[in-house]
Amino acid sequence: MSNIAFIGLGNMGGPMAINLVKKGHHVIGFDLSHSASEALIAAGGQTSDSAITAAKDADVVISMLPSGKHVAELYSEEFISQLKPDTLIIDSSTIDAVTARSVAQMAASKGCKMIDAPVSGGTAGAQAGTLTFIVGGPTKDYEKARPILKCMGQNIFHAGDSGAGQVAKICNNMLLAIHMIGTSEAINLGVRHGLEPKILSEIMQKSSGRNWSLEVYNPYPGVMENAPSSRAYSGGFAVDLMTKDLGLAAEAGLETRTSTPLGNAALNLYRIWSEAGNGTSDFSSIIQFLNKHQ
Amino acid sequence: MSNIAFIGLGNMGGPMAINLVKKGHHVIGFDLSHSASEALIAAGGQTSDSAITAAKDADVVISMLPSGKHVAELYSEEFISQLKPDTLIIDSSTIDAVTARSVAQMAASKGCKMIDAPVSGGTAGAQAGTLTFIVGGPTKDYEKARPILKCMGQNIFHAGDSGAGQVAKICNNMLLAIHMIGTSEAINLGVRHGLEPKILSEIMQKSSGRNWSLEVYNPYPGVMENAPSSRAYSGGFAVDLMTKDLGLAAEAGLETRTSTPLGNAALNLYRIWSEAGNGTSDFSSIIQFLNKHQ
Amino acid sequence: MSNIAFIGLGNMGGPMAINLVKKGHHVIGFDLSHSASEALIAAGGQTSDSAITAAKDADVVISMLPSGKHVAELYSEEFISQLKPDTLIIDSSTIDAVTARSVAQMAASKGCKMIDAPVSGGTAGAQAGTLTFIVGGPTKDYEKARPILKCMGQNIFHAGDSGAGQVAKICNNMLLAIHMIGTSEAINLGVRHGLEPKILSEIMQKSSGRNWSLEVYNPYPGVMENAPSSRAYSGGFAVDLMTKDLGLAAEAGLETRTSTPLGNAALNLYRIWSEAGNGTSDFSSIIQFLNKHQ
Amino acid sequence: MSNIAFIGLGNMGGPMAINLVKKGHHVIGFDLSHSASEALIAAGGQTSDSAITAAKDADVVISMLPSGKHVAELYSEEFISQLKPDTLIIDSSTIDAVTARSVAQMAASKGCKMIDAPVSGGTAGAQAGTLTFIVGGPTKDYEKARPILKCMGQNIFHAGDSGAGQVAKICNNMLLAIHMIGTSEAINLGVRHGLEPKILSEIMQKSSGRNWSLEVYNPYPGVMENAPSSRAYSGGFAVDLMTKDLGLAAEAGLETRTSTPLGNAALNLYRIWSEAGNGTSDFSSIIQFLNKHQ
Repeated sequence: MSNIAFIGLGNMGGPMAINLVKKGHHVIGFDLSHSASEALIAAGGQTSDSAITAAKDADVVISMLPSGKHVAELYSEEFISQLKPDTLIIDSSTIDAVTARSVAQMAASKGCKMIDAPVSGGTAGAQAGTLTFIVGGPTKDYEKARPILKCMGQNIFHAGDSGAGQVAKICNNMLLAIHMIGTSEAINLGVRHGLEPKILSEIMQKSSGRNWSLEVYNPYPGVMENAPSSRAYSGGFAVDLMTKDLGLAAEAGLETRTSTPLGNAALNLYRIWSEAGNGTSDFSSIIQFLNKHQ
Repeated sequence: MSNIAFIGLGNMGGPMAINLVKKGHHVIGFDLSHSASEALIAAGGQTSDSAITAAKDADVVISMLPSGKHVAELYSEEFISQLKPDTLIIDSSTIDAVTARSVAQMAASKGCKMIDAPVSGGTAGAQAGTLTFIVGGPTKDYEKARPILKCMGQNIFHAGDSGAGQVAKICNNMLLAIHMIGTSEAINLGVRHGLEPKILSEIMQKSSGRNWSLEVYNPYPGVMENAPSSRAYSGGFAVDLMTKDLGLAAEAGLETRTSTPLGNAALNLYRIWSEAGNGTSDFSSIIQFLNKHQ
Repeated sequence: MSNIAFIGLGNMGGPMAINLVKKGHHVIGFDLSHSASEALIAAGGQTSDSAITAAKDADVVISMLPSGKHVAELYSEEFISQLKPDTLIIDSSTIDAVTARSVAQMAASKGCKMIDAPVSGGTAGAQAGTLTFIVGGPTKDYEKARPILKCMGQNIFHAGDSGAGQVAKICNNMLLAIHMIGTSEAINLGVRHGLEPKILSEIMQKSSGRNWSLEVYNPYPGVMENAPSSRAYSGGFAVDLMTKDLGLAAEAGLETRTSTPLGNAALNLYRIWSEAGNGTSDFSSIIQFLNKHQ
Repeated sequence: MSNIAFIGLGNMGGPMAINLVKKGHHVIGFDLSHSASEALIAAGGQTSDSAITAAKDADVVISMLPSGKHVAELYSEEFISQLKPDTLIIDSSTIDAVTARSVAQMAASKGCKMIDAPVSGGTAGAQAGTLTFIVGGPTKDYEKARPILKCMGQNIFHAGDSGAGQVAKICNNMLLAIHMIGTSEAINLGVRHGLEPKILSEIMQKSSGRNWSLEVYNPYPGVMENAPSSRAYSGGFAVDLMTKDLGLAAEAGLETRTSTPLGNAALNLYRIWSEAGNGTSDFSSIIQFLNKHQ
């Protein structure tokens, strides 16, 4: 069992830290919010009043923060210098690959190992311990992190070197946004021509239109009882989070001069939908943006 | 066993007619091309020197033609009037729903039944008898057609009333085009950031990016041995056919004032790629349009 | 002075007919709406209780109708057959070129001349007699129509043969929509980076960004006192009319397999904005769609 | 007359420096390329073997460099510290506003004044001394720079505070790309419907489609004798430069979360066109991308 410092105990980080406690790890958490810290204590963990106090004696430091800026600020040279040699740092925030790589490089220069390990699966996955982790970093560090990640998730992928976890995640989420919008367009088009959304969805799911949105997350209300579309687009993965990920994808495209016409179109559609006041709705609500009569 | 007239014995219609012969039906085919007719004769069918001669004593008339214009020209009032009462017409061409509905209505007014039953599965599916049929028309006529269609295909879907088969097919193909382009963008983006296309594809296929293009038709050369991308985009489903279907989808969108931003974007990308001289390549070659270094 | 029948006395047709009366022509109007007819009478014109009664003794028949369907219905073979030989028909409706050409061809076969002469300039231009007419048809007919059109408009262009007036108008309006959205994007981007919208607009108008939207129709509130943007986007050219024209452009693109990626994108943006409840606002309100904080 | 250091004597910077010499200024240039330096000497200027040697006694330092990275590298703290107090730095490179602002801020902290003054007008404008300068920085510094800029250009705009010159320029160029593509789409659409490109262009230029591309830079071959389209798209403003500017615009959009659907679409279209081997053609060649039959 390891001594684990967990920085960032929000909607995602909180339940993840608690799952580590449940599996027998010794977890010291840190978060600026008091109530977040209390939930961890209630579950049998400990908390600290600063990130460095939590981290300085840890074998493993895990962070779950809102943006690249926060990650870069946490992992200052000063912070890294105070860690034990060989500490394994796992950053599970979703951030840009450039920041991920540059922090990892700096950590390595100070004798620490750092991998990027962004997740998918949302708050439900964080609570159930069924998250997907997509890891970027040296194979040796990935192997070392794997049993820890297994306490919090189900599927653990190794995408490649440092930063590759971030890249793979935003590639995936860009593709998800595209087929969610595409699925919405196709169902809207069929419905306006008199087809039943459920029948059309089944036909496409058994044909070459098949995709995850049709399979488990149908955007049309009433087609799938358990999808956010059948509970007024509450819960699920928020429009604002999808917009953030599409922004990271656009940034990654600019860095490498990659053409992503549909990815960029998806970003603009989600951004406009967010600014119209729908940022906290589930991202499948984009079908309503395209057809307000849904 | 039925007397079946088969109009249009091209790359798709030819093998379909032969499969009917193999299942014991009595098939009289018609095609303007001599060589097309000869293949049917060689397989044990008959041919005729005009469409109406082939059709006038048939129980079932099947057509497989290039466009709505051809379908409307074939099924003139004069033609329909010469058929036996209660003849079942199955049009398997991919055409616009408006033409499909108007021809079906006219046929009904003359005592015939007509369903639209466009296919997917390509020439390979036509030969192997594993096509997918998506049917629009009254349930009774769909039930009557089903055993005939089963001789030529595997999955037979009933999408709804007259025209619904056409609508469902173009909805499906529009969605297919969108996730093929999206998949291409995502893989390109990952590869330019140093990821292995195969590893990235596997991660996305096991995550929420999952879709048919990743599953069976990966556009990146070398990732899937049997995909067109691994044989220089030969065979498969041609760029020109996808462009045609996206045009039908755009038309269907205009008729019903449906917003299809990604569907329209896909149409323009495929059209430009076609005009640049790639019309006969497989449609997954769009990844090369987005990144010529593939 | 001519005997002129004027079919369609709405917001556009009404004032146009009155301008013909003012210039001394003998005008008999027809409209299903009573109040529309009364305005023409008050101005010194006459009205009739059917289109054919108004038209049968006319030298010139002018129509201003909402869509191609209405135009095709009005100009039936029966209607045309009752006109005097050599009657000049001027259709000023904005419709698709295919309908325009087919009606003109039929009229010619019955001994009448028909030109398409769609307008721009809106209701203000119709009242002031400053419309722009874009004419398609033989030069001889264009020359004959010119003095009549001059009574209602300022600029009269001859775009080419039958249908060319419609094509040129929708090309123009598609381009207008594109630079209006582009102008909105550019100003939004500058403003969010702290620039003054007025200063930025002036710089672009004096540079290569120059266009009609910047010159006379700035979409940003307060930059131009007389633009619709400075009166809450009331008056002007409605979002729904722009959406209609962009639909005609998309149709014209499908017919000729022309790639119009930005034109199609503009159609979808305007359609979504219209469906969100903004159909009657001026089309420059699209800047609010892109940035609700305007 | 001032002592001016000019860093970067390429296709743009070279002729600009020479124009300063012609107006009587004392110019010391620096460029890594020998031949570039020689042209300045031939025109009566001087050169130096390092940037700092050229700049350390100058009243004014002007730079014309390919990217933000080069600008940030040139204006290091060490470099700025060696300049005379109150030196006016004019950076005419086209770079991102973030870099422009951060370098200006650092320069100010060391007692120098720095403005961003990107240009438009291309190499022809640089040679003729007719460039447009768009300046960002304090009014006092703008006023001081104005007479210097007037030696190299015609229109000098003050867009706002530090960075505003860069923002205004990329807003303008994004809008230019959009109306160039829109103009190309409109002309292609008309031509495919049988219209004369010249007549259609004139009609739109006199109507609400009016824009700079139609006015002085018609993309259709043969319409304008002096436009790049009439000399096989040679000369002019290269596709690669437009792609670069659209990338800067996309970056500026990401920073401020501004929706730029057409701007992003333009970026992807230009990038694909560039990767297909057309990077050095004039940017109006995009009409060929949309319609290879041009």
